[in-house]
Amino acid sequence: MYIRDPIYGNIEVSDTELKIIEDEHMQRLRYIRQTGFAYLVYPGANHTRFEHSIGTMQATKELAENIYSKDDLFTYMGLLHDIGHGPFSHQSEPIIEKYLKKTHEKLGMDIVLRSGIKDIILDSGVSLKKILECFTDKDGHNIISGTLGSDRIDYLLRDSYYTGVAYGIVDFPRIKSKITKYKNKIAIYEQGVSAAESLLLARYFMFENVYMHHAQLIAAKMFTKAAEAAIEEGELEPKLFASMKDEEAMMALSHTKSAAELVHKIQDRKLFKRVYNNAIGDADAPSIKELESALSRKGLGANDYIIETYSMKLPGGDIDVVDRNNAYIGKLGSISELVGTLVGKLGSKKMLLIAVDHNFIEKASSAIKPILAHNA
Amino acid sequence: MYIRDPIYGNIEVSDTELKIIEDEHMQRLRYIRQTGFAYLVYPGANHTRFEHSIGTMQATKELAENIYSKDDLFTYMGLLHDIGHGPFSHQSEPIIEKYLKKTHEKLGMDIVLRSGIKDIILDSGVSLKKILECFTDKDGHNIISGTLGSDRIDYLLRDSYYTGVAYGIVDFPRIKSKITKYKNKIAIYEQGVSAAESLLLARYFMFENVYMHHAQLIAAKMFTKAAEAAIEEGELEPKLFASMKDEEAMMALSHTKSAAELVHKIQDRKLFKRVYNNAIGDADAPSIKELESALSRKGLGANDYIIETYSMKLPGGDIDVVDRNNAYIGKLGSISELVGTLVGKLGSKKMLLIAVDHNFIEKASSAIKPILAHNA
Amino acid sequence: MYIRDPIYGNIEVSDTELKIIEDEHMQRLRYIRQTGFAYLVYPGANHTRFEHSIGTMQATKELAENIYSKDDLFTYMGLLHDIGHGPFSHQSEPIIEKYLKKTHEKLGMDIVLRSGIKDIILDSGVSLKKILECFTDKDGHNIISGTLGSDRIDYLLRDSYYTGVAYGIVDFPRIKSKITKYKNKIAIYEQGVSAAESLLLARYFMFENVYMHHAQLIAAKMFTKAAEAAIEEGELEPKLFASMKDEEAMMALSHTKSAAELVHKIQDRKLFKRVYNNAIGDADAPSIKELESALSRKGLGANDYIIETYSMKLPGGDIDVVDRNNAYIGKLGSISELVGTLVGKLGSKKMLLIAVDHNFIEKASSAIKPILAHNA
Amino acid sequence: MYIRDPIYGNIEVSDTELKIIEDEHMQRLRYIRQTGFAYLVYPGANHTRFEHSIGTMQATKELAENIYSKDDLFTYMGLLHDIGHGPFSHQSEPIIEKYLKKTHEKLGMDIVLRSGIKDIILDSGVSLKKILECFTDKDGHNIISGTLGSDRIDYLLRDSYYTGVAYGIVDFPRIKSKITKYKNKIAIYEQGVSAAESLLLARYFMFENVYMHHAQLIAAKMFTKAAEAAIEEGELEPKLFASMKDEEAMMALSHTKSAAELVHKIQDRKLFKRVYNNAIGDADAPSIKELESALSRKGLGANDYIIETYSMKLPGGDIDVVDRNNAYIGKLGSISELVGTLVGKLGSKKMLLIAVDHNFIEKASSAIKPILAHNA
Repeated sequence: MYIRDPIYGNIEVSDTELKIIEDEHMQRLRYIRQTGFAYLVYPGANHTRFEHSIGTMQATKELAENIYSKDDLFTYMGLLHDIGHGPFSHQSEPIIEKYLKKTHEKLGMDIVLRSGIKDIILDSGVSLKKILECFTDKDGHNIISGTLGSDRIDYLLRDSYYTGVAYGIVDFPRIKSKITKYKNKIAIYEQGVSAAESLLLARYFMFENVYMHHAQLIAAKMFTKAAEAAIEEGELEPKLFASMKDEEAMMALSHTKSAAELVHKIQDRKLFKRVYNNAIGDADAPSIKELESALSRKGLGANDYIIETYSMKLPGGDIDVVDRNNAYIGKLGSISELVGTLVGKLGSKKMLLIAVDHNFIEKASSAIKPILAHNA
Repeated sequence: MYIRDPIYGNIEVSDTELKIIEDEHMQRLRYIRQTGFAYLVYPGANHTRFEHSIGTMQATKELAENIYSKDDLFTYMGLLHDIGHGPFSHQSEPIIEKYLKKTHEKLGMDIVLRSGIKDIILDSGVSLKKILECFTDKDGHNIISGTLGSDRIDYLLRDSYYTGVAYGIVDFPRIKSKITKYKNKIAIYEQGVSAAESLLLARYFMFENVYMHHAQLIAAKMFTKAAEAAIEEGELEPKLFASMKDEEAMMALSHTKSAAELVHKIQDRKLFKRVYNNAIGDADAPSIKELESALSRKGLGANDYIIETYSMKLPGGDIDVVDRNNAYIGKLGSISELVGTLVGKLGSKKMLLIAVDHNFIEKASSAIKPILAHNA
Repeated sequence: MYIRDPIYGNIEVSDTELKIIEDEHMQRLRYIRQTGFAYLVYPGANHTRFEHSIGTMQATKELAENIYSKDDLFTYMGLLHDIGHGPFSHQSEPIIEKYLKKTHEKLGMDIVLRSGIKDIILDSGVSLKKILECFTDKDGHNIISGTLGSDRIDYLLRDSYYTGVAYGIVDFPRIKSKITKYKNKIAIYEQGVSAAESLLLARYFMFENVYMHHAQLIAAKMFTKAAEAAIEEGELEPKLFASMKDEEAMMALSHTKSAAELVHKIQDRKLFKRVYNNAIGDADAPSIKELESALSRKGLGANDYIIETYSMKLPGGDIDVVDRNNAYIGKLGSISELVGTLVGKLGSKKMLLIAVDHNFIEKASSAIKPILAHNA
Repeated sequence: MYIRDPIYGNIEVSDTELKIIEDEHMQRLRYIRQTGFAYLVYPGANHTRFEHSIGTMQATKELAENIYSKDDLFTYMGLLHDIGHGPFSHQSEPIIEKYLKKTHEKLGMDIVLRSGIKDIILDSGVSLKKILECFTDKDGHNIISGTLGSDRIDYLLRDSYYTGVAYGIVDFPRIKSKITKYKNKIAIYEQGVSAAESLLLARYFMFENVYMHHAQLIAAKMFTKAAEAAIEEGELEPKLFASMKDEEAMMALSHTKSAAELVHKIQDRKLFKRVYNNAIGDADAPSIKELESALSRKGLGANDYIIETYSMKLPGGDIDVVDRNNAYIGKLGSISELVGTLVGKLGSKKMLLIAVDHNFIEKASSAIKPILAHNA
């Protein structure tokens, strides 16, 4: 059986894989956008975790070809790795982690164990224990979630394709042919350094232009603020929230007292406007409490603004580079000056974003100015 | 201002165009899938009427360049032409036409007149009357909805891109450069016949492989059956239905008694299975009533099956072909043998599709066999 | 070892395949353009038989996957199938066949037998006899040269890519997954009919727009006329000509007395201009002799014009279509109305092209008019 | 009139532009490969300076749209900028500069002045003086040859397309919309920094993977060594050499005594093999004379090896970045840490490549080892 995919052409699907895909929890991913609210910036970005999951399965198979003998463990993990995602993928994570104390990986484990997928895996002969380990053991499944892993390769290619930006187009054929194993971890041959650099840079540019585009961050923060308010007011059950689809969550919130206004603004794309979006040093980072007080003094209510700190998280320097004979040469971060710069200077940059309802732009600007003066 | 689009790169948007796009009725199109339930067959087909509307605006501008002086009338019409669509675009049309007696074009007119868009147009100096004429006058706005119009060019390119099939890739640059006007209608130069043929064939292949893929037709019919039941039972208001977004409609239906079961099956992708999907002659077309009775006698309830007749509607033969000196040569359908075949034999083919819940496949097959024997 | 190709990404190459590729006769194909003189119309069409040969090898492997167990015979044949081509590929064929009485397939056999490739094949264990059979047995190697064969798939995709036209983009993934064997021949499943139709139409459109573009035909005929003159005058040895590369042949001809003028016109792209290019019926086909006399009477020398008759050769209707259970349904040409039209009406159309030096356009037009009046 | 191009679709060409394109000196560029000998590594890289020249014209027009009123000066310069290139483009430059003391820009000026192009320009009303200035004034024509210029944009996109590598895919739509003028020079808006970074990185990756691929460098050096030998022996006239096409030069050299052997090795792709290819510090750079003596002592003749030093030349840091109000912010190289790294550390890296005939690999390796020990 084949599934048509714009990135890989036809993806061949085995009977067991098809059974997993047909499970309602996998089908649910059809209704969860891959890139959160990026569709409000890039109208084409309506692609979902469903396509990405099937794509990651395919990329896992292709990557694994050169380093493992065929291993369904990795294939199934590629397919299942995002099954625990809440509405709008990463955008609901802060809420879910705050109220359920669980990562999406942990929620994924729970789903596998309580759904029909458990039996499908048991029937297939793959160790359920290993699958569950994979969900949490960051190191074990790095063919999927690692620096050069299939998850990343798929989302960079896919997010570029659907947004229409060129930044994330990585050289998958080259990476595939230059990847290897060193001390049981994914490593890269020296001749693949350029392809690895290019992948890490592609990810950086996608962060800059898509994932951390200010409008996507603003919409996402408006959404989590709405969800938080609804939960705090007892109008939304956190566990239920975690299991919702994108539009299900939006509609549930639109029927609450506490969150309706914020959510309608997202739906009609009346997003808050930036009044500040800059790097802040650690030393003189402004206190969020202080900013909130200043905005409050100017008459802004809790639902009139968002304040968000964020950073890039650009790891990737620690992948091993080996020569033709599989002898260790060094870490990618030290061999490549570009990766060094990326991981070092850019990866640690801390950003502050403040946005307000369009009626409060001037008031907010003057309120925050004195506090942020030294960050200008 | 620019909007990024995978098909055209950056689309430039004027202030007036932006104001129209920002209207809530245009924003609503972000939540209406372009190709109905095709996403259940082609996982990437989550693109929306929103992208398509902006794309049609752009294609209109590019097409018009060679035949009109710049005319905002056509630009705005390209943008607005689908604003009246109900949930899942064409899939809700039969229901809306049945209960509201209005086409989506007529609903689009209503929206323009009662929304802020009316004033935006009045301010821009474009004749509101002409805009409204465009919504209904099939002939007048054929740069958008005609055989070689921008609507068609955009959806073929876009639907191919998002589904990942190659069938709809038309030669837009060539069509653009070979289109002209003859007796105030869009015509094509002789040297553009090949490009025009190719477009009509692309459309045929997209019908065959996407728009009329059996699983998309089955899901669509399950959806309209659900909506019809809910309306008949007084659980859904037709006018409200027409204004809903895709997932809004699905959720509304999932909360009704009459439609919940069918809708949950769509959501979990437990679609009915084909038991018949073939061409039927006009003469010996089986009566749907007869088929329903036969299925009913075997114990199938109204929500256990769908029966759908459909055909391709492949017009396009009547576009004028002219020579270099704009002298008339003939109609495309008679000049091109391929278009002749397409419009003639294939365009008039009537199809019958019967699908049932997977529990009833055998019973249904034996029930319909005698009735359809002469069509096998 | 991998070879980078824009169509398939990275093509994996085995040691034996690499040895064949490294042979000087395969390397020679780097200097023979895939689409003859089409580069004078489509500036990007500088791609060569070398890339096409490697691509055909890859397409053969992918196609064969579903129908044969791995078989190096077909792989090597895919690689070698064009090794006998003369300068500008098909454009030199009439000359070579006239003077050497050999097809390019027969010349390919000769090259294999007298070169190092023979030993490479013998060492590999593949039957040399079977390879040689493949070169001539049209029926035996139809996975390569057949209706849905790898040769055709590769050249349609490749020629579209390099020319930049969209016409030849066939749905290779779909064809691959729907191809099968019936009575030991390549057949197609019913569900693949649409993909097969699309391939045959793609080929038709490429004929119309690229392979039979009048300027490419004119340049090609100017070239063969030059070569013929040089051979007749004893200034060019036919066997040597057959072994030349594109530019080698052009330069050799440019140093002859008889052909220099024509060849310089091609090099500077001073191509003859069309005065006639239309379908001619069999019944009233004008005599070429008569046309030549008429032109001669107006003062045109042999090197001032070209007269070329050509047709499309659009076979493909005889491929077998089978159902899911591999039971015979019918021939593609009768099942598909489009293929029927293509093979029937369009495939048999005979065309006449007359072009002359730009100084003779008016004289030539008036000379041929009376003769061709009934074909206008 | 339109020219079909895979990068931009249809390129519109005015009458004057067409006249320039039809000139024999522009037509000659059809026979000069854009990326020298890269086709020996990437089989698809047969694209020529001709396509690139037309593409650069188109990119110039698109870039200029936002910063100049339409100016044919830049359009013509885009078209003409490479008209002076010798065989294999940049690969023949060292020879031409050594013997003719002229850059390809200077040779381009000469061609314009002595050919029909001069009159075409005079007729068009564009100042011939300004065109000639453009050829040499690095600063004046930076919309073409500058950091974000059309030349670079076209070759990155084009070389990526034809080689099939993803590295050079720059975000042209974004650059186009974020480019501006500051103090009469091309500058970039702050929001375009990411696109500018991406372009400079794309160029770096193309250097690493294509332009400075060791096999392309080896073939190029074998070619210049052959040309140098032939010139020194009086078998090749430098001025004639500069005016040759790729294959014309190869064939001319293949008929000399001094160069035939090297040239046949390139034609049959029997390239020298790397024995050294590493960065060398300035301080302890080995003397080429010393290396030559060492190789000579081991029995290697002048035609058995090549020694080449090369570096990346990665300027681009000095472009001005301005804010929305066109106020100066800083130089790109200081604002972007990635560009800083690129220009600083990577741009100044000096490389040494030594390659020898495959019969001498061991001898050569042992000969150079002691000399290069401190660079290992």
